[in-house]
Amino acid sequence: MDKPATIKDVAELARVHAATASRALNPQTRDKVSPRTAARIVEAARALGYSPNSAARSLRTRTSSVVGVVIPDLRNPVFPPIVRGVEDALREAGYLALLGNTDGDAERERDLLATMRGQQLAGFILATSKRDGVPLGPDVSVVLVNRRTDAGDVASVVADSGAGVRALVNLLVERGHSRIGHLAGPQDTSTGVERYRAFLDGLSAHGLTPSGVEFCDAFSEQAGYDATRRLLAGGVSVTAIVAGNDMIALGCYGALAELGLRCPEDVSVTGFNDMPFVDKQRPALTTVRIPHYDIGYEAARLLLERIADPSSPPKRLVLPVELIERNSVARVALSDPPNARTGQN
Amino acid sequence: MDKPATIKDVAELARVHAATASRALNPQTRDKVSPRTAARIVEAARALGYSPNSAARSLRTRTSSVVGVVIPDLRNPVFPPIVRGVEDALREAGYLALLGNTDGDAERERDLLATMRGQQLAGFILATSKRDGVPLGPDVSVVLVNRRTDAGDVASVVADSGAGVRALVNLLVERGHSRIGHLAGPQDTSTGVERYRAFLDGLSAHGLTPSGVEFCDAFSEQAGYDATRRLLAGGVSVTAIVAGNDMIALGCYGALAELGLRCPEDVSVTGFNDMPFVDKQRPALTTVRIPHYDIGYEAARLLLERIADPSSPPKRLVLPVELIERNSVARVALSDPPNARTGQN
Repeated sequence: MDKPATIKDVAELARVHAATASRALNPQTRDKVSPRTAARIVEAARALGYSPNSAARSLRTRTSSVVGVVIPDLRNPVFPPIVRGVEDALREAGYLALLGNTDGDAERERDLLATMRGQQLAGFILATSKRDGVPLGPDVSVVLVNRRTDAGDVASVVADSGAGVRALVNLLVERGHSRIGHLAGPQDTSTGVERYRAFLDGLSAHGLTPSGVEFCDAFSEQAGYDATRRLLAGGVSVTAIVAGNDMIALGCYGALAELGLRCPEDVSVTGFNDMPFVDKQRPALTTVRIPHYDIGYEAARLLLERIADPSSPPKRLVLPVELIERNSVARVALSDPPNARTGQN
Repeated sequence: MDKPATIKDVAELARVHAATASRALNPQTRDKVSPRTAARIVEAARALGYSPNSAARSLRTRTSSVVGVVIPDLRNPVFPPIVRGVEDALREAGYLALLGNTDGDAERERDLLATMRGQQLAGFILATSKRDGVPLGPDVSVVLVNRRTDAGDVASVVADSGAGVRALVNLLVERGHSRIGHLAGPQDTSTGVERYRAFLDGLSAHGLTPSGVEFCDAFSEQAGYDATRRLLAGGVSVTAIVAGNDMIALGCYGALAELGLRCPEDVSVTGFNDMPFVDKQRPALTTVRIPHYDIGYEAARLLLERIADPSSPPKRLVLPVELIERNSVARVALSDPPNARTGQN
């Protein structure tokens, strides 16, 4: 095989000093070189197949160009577009993403973080954290994605849960619903507690109180199924259920079908996230769209900022959401005579 | 903060020599230590929060405990369970997964592989490769996932495309179909060409020939939509369409709906992969289930074998598939009088 290209070869081809080439090829110093020159150097490096020995650089600088991305489970459809956004933003800056799943298990998360820390990573993006803090020291650059801490001491990117849930409640009330229940997400997560509070606030703004709340121990279909069974087993009468997220809503669909209740004719259901394929469910799910890809992309951008300047204050970014009306919410028209059209044709 | 724990601290707590502790904590030498002793050492390391300095080890051994996982796009629902299987198998061996998306773009793939190679990775799992080979030298440990090369010179884990497509064709013929078209996947991929050949073989076994074949330039919904429009624009009359995979089948659903053709009443459609949520489509898709998670898991196991013994011959693993009958295939009963039951009740 050919001798591998060196930084000097790259500098020569790009007609710059070796030090300039080195700066341009290191994501952490690239902004010290003019964009046009940096582009020429990157092009030259590519043409020569130049590959910086990152292991050597890592040992010298004590960090690598690799970021740990820790999520509960990639098979939850919310995460692939978030992770894709993270990876795209990292790649643009010459960084790579080391991916790990925790299944929401604290021990698995501890192990994973310890193994990742052994790699001298540049920082972490965590989608797993609880409200009470992150299991990493203050010496580590961290951005939370789709989560935040109560103390607000960690940088984060989230969607506007409050605005989303209030929009869902307003829609239900407009459609005539007043007996509305909630399947709340886990209350040790920021999204679980923020959506629950927004549900109470939203009802309160219309002078209503909840017709039943059940708490799910996970943002999962199974937890949504179980919570729906508990909600309705108590003899609670609701015409609508606001689920903590889409997965919980799908579990609710399953439980309603088993109980012989039709959605939306008997019970309207709403979700949260607009994850892929909920538009293809029966009925298509009315939900709140969060900008999954942008959340991941912005989280990676924030992390790169923090890596460049670890002393900067932790920003908290809230991205807007959008109400997506489909077919899982019916109008309640109490004054209609029952079966008004029966017998006419 | 406390001084970080050293390998000596770990050895002392586990009552072994430092060399034994070191072997037990290195995935590549762990099997030289008895499982019980290794477990005790790992437990001691965890208790002390010991984190091996992998960057230093990497420079010494010229490889890390990190594997590159390269896929087209994580947002294609086939990949999350595969990647999750990869990550689980790697984690069990103390390895981590560096994830990258290529969008099927050759230049993006070259860049990504060059950047990853700069990290002295232990090996690669590629879901992106074409039939003509892999863009990595023979000095690199590689396993292909859901893909293989014509030459068979690279280790791979795939599902049995041939058996799956033949089962679909048999089902259609049993249901009375004889005018069957195919929306073939890209012919520079092994799955595209293997399924196309199996389609021809399957028809031939029943003395049939294809009623039209269109080739998709990607395994995507858009490509499936376009190919369906081309197939039917030519005035081809089919009662069933075998799509190259589920994404292509979803594009076919969209095109049929636009053309005012009902599925399955006018045209039956089949997919391939049984990706998440095709059971919730309208109609629920008849398809072939591949063991996504197992494919990923086995690919990582194969790669770890090759890392341990790079001179071993490249294994090719084919995993069995399962026909999943849902509602997208109708019976064609040419001899039934039309609307036979009309007027009887």
